[in-house]
Amino acid sequence: MAKKNAFYAQSGGVTAVINASASGVIETARKHKDKIGKVYAGRNGIIGALTEDLIDTNKESIKDIAALRHTPSGAFGSCRFKLKGLEENKAQYERLIEVFKAHNIGYFFYNGGGDSADTCLKVSQLSEKMGYPLQAIHVPKTVDNDLPITDCCPGFGSVAKYVAVSMREASFDVASMAKTSTKVFVMEVMGRHAGWIAAAGGLASDENCQLPIVILFPEIAFNKAKFLAKVDEMVKKHGYCSVVVSEGVKGEDGKFLSDQGVRDAFGHAQLGGAAPVIANMVKDALGYKFHWAVADYLQRAARHIASKTDVEQAYALGQKAVELALKGENAVMPTVDRVSDKPYKWKIGVAQLSKVANVEKMMPRNFITKDGFGITDKCRTYLAPLIKGEDYPPFKDGLPQYVKLKNVAVSKKLPAFKV
Amino acid sequence: MAKKNAFYAQSGGVTAVINASASGVIETARKHKDKIGKVYAGRNGIIGALTEDLIDTNKESIKDIAALRHTPSGAFGSCRFKLKGLEENKAQYERLIEVFKAHNIGYFFYNGGGDSADTCLKVSQLSEKMGYPLQAIHVPKTVDNDLPITDCCPGFGSVAKYVAVSMREASFDVASMAKTSTKVFVMEVMGRHAGWIAAAGGLASDENCQLPIVILFPEIAFNKAKFLAKVDEMVKKHGYCSVVVSEGVKGEDGKFLSDQGVRDAFGHAQLGGAAPVIANMVKDALGYKFHWAVADYLQRAARHIASKTDVEQAYALGQKAVELALKGENAVMPTVDRVSDKPYKWKIGVAQLSKVANVEKMMPRNFITKDGFGITDKCRTYLAPLIKGEDYPPFKDGLPQYVKLKNVAVSKKLPAFKV
Repeated sequence: MAKKNAFYAQSGGVTAVINASASGVIETARKHKDKIGKVYAGRNGIIGALTEDLIDTNKESIKDIAALRHTPSGAFGSCRFKLKGLEENKAQYERLIEVFKAHNIGYFFYNGGGDSADTCLKVSQLSEKMGYPLQAIHVPKTVDNDLPITDCCPGFGSVAKYVAVSMREASFDVASMAKTSTKVFVMEVMGRHAGWIAAAGGLASDENCQLPIVILFPEIAFNKAKFLAKVDEMVKKHGYCSVVVSEGVKGEDGKFLSDQGVRDAFGHAQLGGAAPVIANMVKDALGYKFHWAVADYLQRAARHIASKTDVEQAYALGQKAVELALKGENAVMPTVDRVSDKPYKWKIGVAQLSKVANVEKMMPRNFITKDGFGITDKCRTYLAPLIKGEDYPPFKDGLPQYVKLKNVAVSKKLPAFKV
Repeated sequence: MAKKNAFYAQSGGVTAVINASASGVIETARKHKDKIGKVYAGRNGIIGALTEDLIDTNKESIKDIAALRHTPSGAFGSCRFKLKGLEENKAQYERLIEVFKAHNIGYFFYNGGGDSADTCLKVSQLSEKMGYPLQAIHVPKTVDNDLPITDCCPGFGSVAKYVAVSMREASFDVASMAKTSTKVFVMEVMGRHAGWIAAAGGLASDENCQLPIVILFPEIAFNKAKFLAKVDEMVKKHGYCSVVVSEGVKGEDGKFLSDQGVRDAFGHAQLGGAAPVIANMVKDALGYKFHWAVADYLQRAARHIASKTDVEQAYALGQKAVELALKGENAVMPTVDRVSDKPYKWKIGVAQLSKVANVEKMMPRNFITKDGFGITDKCRTYLAPLIKGEDYPPFKDGLPQYVKLKNVAVSKKLPAFKV
């Protein structure tokens, strides 16, 4: 096998551990210099490939590539960009081949979620349909945890841990205040379609630390009367109640709760969150004082409270992607396979990309309690190991030391291309 | 000195470290059993004293009292309740004396912020004005950091650390997304009057990790045109921008930004946050895609990322409060006195409560940059040591192990009293 360079890029919403996968890819590639030349990273995902904006990762020190393991965000820049089908935009594919040829690229590693798996699958077909020899391997990543086949998705475990820890902490806070002040706390979390992240809020309460938590899943049609009755019951029983609301919850009118026709003083539509809508609903109907939070990017960037399990899996998947490429694989994705629940054991498996792209894995109904407001033991068994272990980044002067790479550009060899 | 019991209570908004002060008070009192009998905690602050709802902390194990040091929230319940003046509501003071007499209470430790210092001061006058011998010591606590005399307030350092860490993490995230998606991230933090917490967001960026951060302080009148120009400049220069907005920022109309006449579909006033208002303002004027977060209780409850300095000071202040009482002091508050900046050294001092109650310490103007959107080196020198050091709580199965006390009630001896 002739020595070829590799292309690696990050795609979609970034996570606390996508850089751990990058570290896995680059460190493993560096161990196989007989077969893999340089690893070029795409600046801002696939856009970097199209515009020939490549980063020479060889210019980064061993120490800095290792530090990616504890650095959140996408070190090379990410993008929200979906390649069209080969027939619809052949020019883009021809351009990719030109760039790959110009830089002797034979390996393509794409690190992303469902949409990115689709992009990776399309690129993997270059070899077959356009005669350019390329091995395309997808490295899974998404806080939404909605990729099929793999038991879980890197990025999710750390968000889940953030949400569970935050809900436990905020619930302790509300419990202290409830006598004369706040009785209901609402936290909005990510997950527009699938309720995996919201479900993690349920982990805050367990056998040894019982807390009154109500979860609103996007999978369950929102029923205002039932929800208010549940909150009221919790407050009457425990003195307070904590609510986790997924950003994807839809009201009875089928619209997102966060899009309830709110207008500012000038009549402009106001993009709000689901949390304030829910909190005000409780106040109006039950009169309880409330507080609400919207975690937004904080939840997926919170490397300081990342799950050790998640970090290890993210790294292992990056490592495996390179090993699969070296074995001559194409159009595949390494997966996390669960071997056992208790004790939790996992290994890395392989899935065909064609079975991954454009498939969304929703929460099974039996992971949600009958009343729709909580998680079942089955769900708990699934989620619990994913948040296990701490993997603190190094701190200096009270702040986490995250690496910023040099990101040195590779000299361009081709004319410009408009994306 | 005859052996007397002590009363301890928590007041106002709770913090990540107020229980560390409780631990300091109780552990120190337990070392002086010759002079201090039992420590009774008020259930829900001063209300526990008025309603004779006392908790016998002697029923708690050594281990559990030690665990308070790493447990956020108020373990005995807090309250938002300000005693009226002695002349206005003498009945309340007479009731306090009755309860203290019935339970042989001679020491009064009140753990709170500015309003609570006022309550503690009033209680301290019982001895003088109503002939009941009592020593009242205030233990400072407030995330707002607005108490005078003390160099800083327990609870603040940990919120500051949370805000600085979160802003650093979220800024890394936005930087990755900016090419094709989010360019402006807005995080709302606490601080209705003083901008100390917002200022901490500025620590996210330092010499070794420069990030484009814009801060909106409640001390600076909001100027929409200047703010938008600043954000635009940052985005054009760095590709993205992170904004920290204090909940207390007021618009040009003198109203809180979070109260800009927003109405829902039914015309009801919608209680929103300052963050969505700011984010939408950026979108409308500059067209940049945004994300926003409201940290709310998460910031003050985040014991998992508490500042070690803060935890140590909170404990030391609780300890000192008991030592002051044993020395016969009354109407005082132990303080943190800064001995030096570099290296940071501090010791515990003492302030007269009359000089503390009802005084708010605002950010000095020279802590804020001339343009009003950042922090000066002077501010940095002040803030930096307060977030220094990590003090992780113990974790089990991925979750922090916070203690829930038994909170056994002391038998009542008196008729009921309506608060």
